[in-house]
Amino acid sequence: LDYQHVQVPFEITLWIMLASLAKIGFHLYNKLPSVVPESCLLIFVGLIMGGIIYGLNDKSPPVMDSDIFFLYLLPPIVLDAGYFMPSRPFFENIGTILLYAVVGTIWNVFGIGFSLYGICQVKAFRLQDVSLLHNLLFGSLIAAVDPVAVLAVFEEIHVNEKLHILVFGESLLNDAVTVVLYKLFRSFCEMPTIKTVDVFAGVGKFFVVGLGGVLVGLAFGMTAAFTTRFTKDIRVIEPLFVFLYSYLSYLTAEMFHLSGIVAIIACAMGMKRYVEANISLKSHTTVKYFMKMWSSVSDTLIFIFLGVSTIGENHEWNWPYICFTVIFCLVWRALGVLVLTFFVNRFHVNTITSKDQFIIAYGGLRGAICFSLVFLLPDFHRKKLFIAATTVVILFTVFVQGMTIRPLVDLLAVKRKRESAPTVGEQIHIRFLDHLLAGIEDISGHWGQYYWKDKLEYFNSKYLQKILLREYDQPKSSIVLLYEKLERKHAIELAEAGQLGHGLSHPSLLHSGFLCSNNDRTVITDKKLEDTLNPAVLDNIQEILARNLYRIRRTGPAYNRHTLPGETEPVEHAKEILILRHKSL
Amino acid sequence: LDYQHVQVPFEITLWIMLASLAKIGFHLYNKLPSVVPESCLLIFVGLIMGGIIYGLNDKSPPVMDSDIFFLYLLPPIVLDAGYFMPSRPFFENIGTILLYAVVGTIWNVFGIGFSLYGICQVKAFRLQDVSLLHNLLFGSLIAAVDPVAVLAVFEEIHVNEKLHILVFGESLLNDAVTVVLYKLFRSFCEMPTIKTVDVFAGVGKFFVVGLGGVLVGLAFGMTAAFTTRFTKDIRVIEPLFVFLYSYLSYLTAEMFHLSGIVAIIACAMGMKRYVEANISLKSHTTVKYFMKMWSSVSDTLIFIFLGVSTIGENHEWNWPYICFTVIFCLVWRALGVLVLTFFVNRFHVNTITSKDQFIIAYGGLRGAICFSLVFLLPDFHRKKLFIAATTVVILFTVFVQGMTIRPLVDLLAVKRKRESAPTVGEQIHIRFLDHLLAGIEDISGHWGQYYWKDKLEYFNSKYLQKILLREYDQPKSSIVLLYEKLERKHAIELAEAGQLGHGLSHPSLLHSGFLCSNNDRTVITDKKLEDTLNPAVLDNIQEILARNLYRIRRTGPAYNRHTLPGETEPVEHAKEILILRHKSL
Repeated sequence: LDYQHVQVPFEITLWIMLASLAKIGFHLYNKLPSVVPESCLLIFVGLIMGGIIYGLNDKSPPVMDSDIFFLYLLPPIVLDAGYFMPSRPFFENIGTILLYAVVGTIWNVFGIGFSLYGICQVKAFRLQDVSLLHNLLFGSLIAAVDPVAVLAVFEEIHVNEKLHILVFGESLLNDAVTVVLYKLFRSFCEMPTIKTVDVFAGVGKFFVVGLGGVLVGLAFGMTAAFTTRFTKDIRVIEPLFVFLYSYLSYLTAEMFHLSGIVAIIACAMGMKRYVEANISLKSHTTVKYFMKMWSSVSDTLIFIFLGVSTIGENHEWNWPYICFTVIFCLVWRALGVLVLTFFVNRFHVNTITSKDQFIIAYGGLRGAICFSLVFLLPDFHRKKLFIAATTVVILFTVFVQGMTIRPLVDLLAVKRKRESAPTVGEQIHIRFLDHLLAGIEDISGHWGQYYWKDKLEYFNSKYLQKILLREYDQPKSSIVLLYEKLERKHAIELAEAGQLGHGLSHPSLLHSGFLCSNNDRTVITDKKLEDTLNPAVLDNIQEILARNLYRIRRTGPAYNRHTLPGETEPVEHAKEILILRHKSL
Repeated sequence: LDYQHVQVPFEITLWIMLASLAKIGFHLYNKLPSVVPESCLLIFVGLIMGGIIYGLNDKSPPVMDSDIFFLYLLPPIVLDAGYFMPSRPFFENIGTILLYAVVGTIWNVFGIGFSLYGICQVKAFRLQDVSLLHNLLFGSLIAAVDPVAVLAVFEEIHVNEKLHILVFGESLLNDAVTVVLYKLFRSFCEMPTIKTVDVFAGVGKFFVVGLGGVLVGLAFGMTAAFTTRFTKDIRVIEPLFVFLYSYLSYLTAEMFHLSGIVAIIACAMGMKRYVEANISLKSHTTVKYFMKMWSSVSDTLIFIFLGVSTIGENHEWNWPYICFTVIFCLVWRALGVLVLTFFVNRFHVNTITSKDQFIIAYGGLRGAICFSLVFLLPDFHRKKLFIAATTVVILFTVFVQGMTIRPLVDLLAVKRKRESAPTVGEQIHIRFLDHLLAGIEDISGHWGQYYWKDKLEYFNSKYLQKILLREYDQPKSSIVLLYEKLERKHAIELAEAGQLGHGLSHPSLLHSGFLCSNNDRTVITDKKLEDTLNPAVLDNIQEILARNLYRIRRTGPAYNRHTLPGETEPVEHAKEILILRHKSL
């Protein structure tokens, strides 16, 4: 037996296997995941595993290594989040998200830090040795809402899209703030004296870390898109580039002390459009599938490791400090959301209701990022207290808040996500409105989001597409692409229902095939659609719509991290309609 | 700048990126890969890289780590080879393959070992200190044909299927022999005296290592198939199990000193059938795509690293030893193939022609396995000579033989692989013949391959399928599955040609949809087809064939490791036929 030789890959494989089998186990009992979020179940499995290891070895089980977490487990989850980010609601609410992520996080850090410092002044609690700086440092790591935990809970409760993107977007973008504040306070802790210059340098760093991350991400994203221009002859390695470039963007950002999370999101969102146009359909399926699979495994491993790492002897228990930490986390977040939303609502027509505000405040879950950061703290005599407090906050938010948020959403009757994705008709209307609003903004001289979107779209079609897309001489409008995608799906459904045969003899078919096969005449360029929408184009769209009105087609299905688009749809229902229709003919 | 922190993943990612970009580079110039095999180009890139590293650092570039090679680079390639192994030709020629792999390899090891020992006795060469055991040890590592090198060359020259499987199968299965002989001689080298018992133990080990590998592989394969029975609710992690279980089978086999290559091949071939029936279509695409991608990258990295590792100062040059090694490798292989084929041809009707024999002997390429094994040798004073000789043999076989084999195949007019895969009609005929032969063997009491195949099929449908398949109550005949697959593909083609519409009004369609939608009545079970092929079933098959005769459908496309099935086909041509057909209606 030569275990030494294969130990590393063998143990990694076994951990992943355990995680995957645990996931299968939960899904075998359908009732369990509908009551308890998967993240809680996984932490529970981890706790049991940790207990077993502790019991057998009589020493603390291994703690999740911060390096492994930040270098290997976090990137797949963030990549998945960025790649499948619904870009429209994200950019529509970018202002609010940034406000929550930047101002909200700073508010929380200082709020929690100063109030815990206040608690430390109470002599009865015996905490006077914890300095203000240490409290602020602790505040900086405990304040940040965790994207992994938020995703795990929010994708199961199906709140409306805006509410989802507000909490989720905040949890992703606050990384830049957390990184800066954490590193700032950590270096302050080690400095003998703090000068005013250092504080200003810290403020300047916000922009460097955040914007630097965006730039690094976009640079890698564009390079990835450019590379996929040349992969026509070796389709099999296409998916690789998506993963390699996004991972490189993350690592490069981390190397320069920028925000890796922001970089990978910018990379994924930037390249998605061009890469998807360049790579083959099968490559695209593989990219999507593998991203989901990978992030799902990472996420499972993170929660199991969280559970395992909780067991052990590296905790120092202090009732007042730990209890007040939990209370302050809740109170300051609630206050922050209330105050910030007050300002946001003054400038928006589509306001955030008080129910939504409650869910935003209540959805501020903490997770593995806090946990990894607290272990990265330099050794000092109260580190074990901080570890204990962080663990309690994470377990409290994941278990108590995570398990009660679903009943609360039901109780408050929070607006849910619409069950069906927008129809083709709705999408065309939304497009029309966008153009209309862009025109109004242009005339009134207001540089609003529609104006910028229009300018970006122009820049994209004028320059970017020519450089990054392989087949630019035949650009297809997104409507035509959508139509082709629907037809392909429809064809597969027909074939699976056995309704497809050799007798496509209807005379209208040859005509209807015209739109796609005769590219020169009828293909609509994006540019044209945006500028003119001339009658011929409108006729074509009408023709497409008329031919497809027998059932309302569902296009982009609802966002869910564990399923791939196209799986959740009621295929059976559609088949039935089709068969009925054929009989009536 | 914090490079230390991200160094490991960053450098790994960069190497993979370099490999992928090199691949793209070659394919941009279409003429280059058609003359020089990709493996040569990659080694060349590696040599240049190694030269640069050597020039800049003034010390030998890092040598490919044997652990990295055996634990991380080799498994994806072997998994891909096993999963996409054409099982029919493999099992039809299993006897011949085993003969070449076991007896042929032993022949080569002892032939090369003893003749090199003879060379060492010549005083003028100053090699008298190389003992017989060391020469045999060297023979055991240099004799084995390398699957990675063979695949890289043979998939580009498209020889006929039998010839391909003979060389490729030998290169895979000789691993068991190589492992045993290499470890045996290595332990003999360290032993003071060798007893007769040890030699017999070595012979017994052959069976343990080979059959043990098969058993470990099959155990993991069956577990994988069983696990995928329960993944219906979480499709995204399905591909993971295919990779995890096969990797575990490899690692477990290595741990117990069995043949990892044999284990992973048995695992892949064993699980393929059941896993494919259990997992979703998209999961299957992902599995196939990712396997191809991964093996392609591994293979690229191996050849680049081979090139890089060649440069440096760990070589001891001795003209006679190195030249005679190359000559003996060629001569003993040629002799072995001649002698073994003589016996094989006496027992087979379908003989191996002398042209085929030449290509089998000439296709015995050496590669990274030899290279890794020579570095794993215990330190002794002539190790550098062995390294130099191994490097020369590898470079000679890959460059000289690899580059000349294509012109030789053309010159000799070796029978090529048929361009098109068998049609549905041919497949049905083959099936009929199989049943006929199984019957004849049964009656005549001869336990031939058809008899065993029939028994295995019976065991499979009676027990294995019930345990391993999720939806066993509705088994579908492979013909029906094939038909469904073809329909799906056809539908996509139609949709892409714009020929699919809402007017499927032909009256025959409702009838033709019958076969698949009305499972209870018409679905043919595998069992039924094998036993009776009753009239109703035959009618159905005839109906399917009649409906599809307007063009000869191509089903399983030709085997190629760099492309996925379905990509290479002339879609345009098919579209044209369809459009013409519609016009004529």
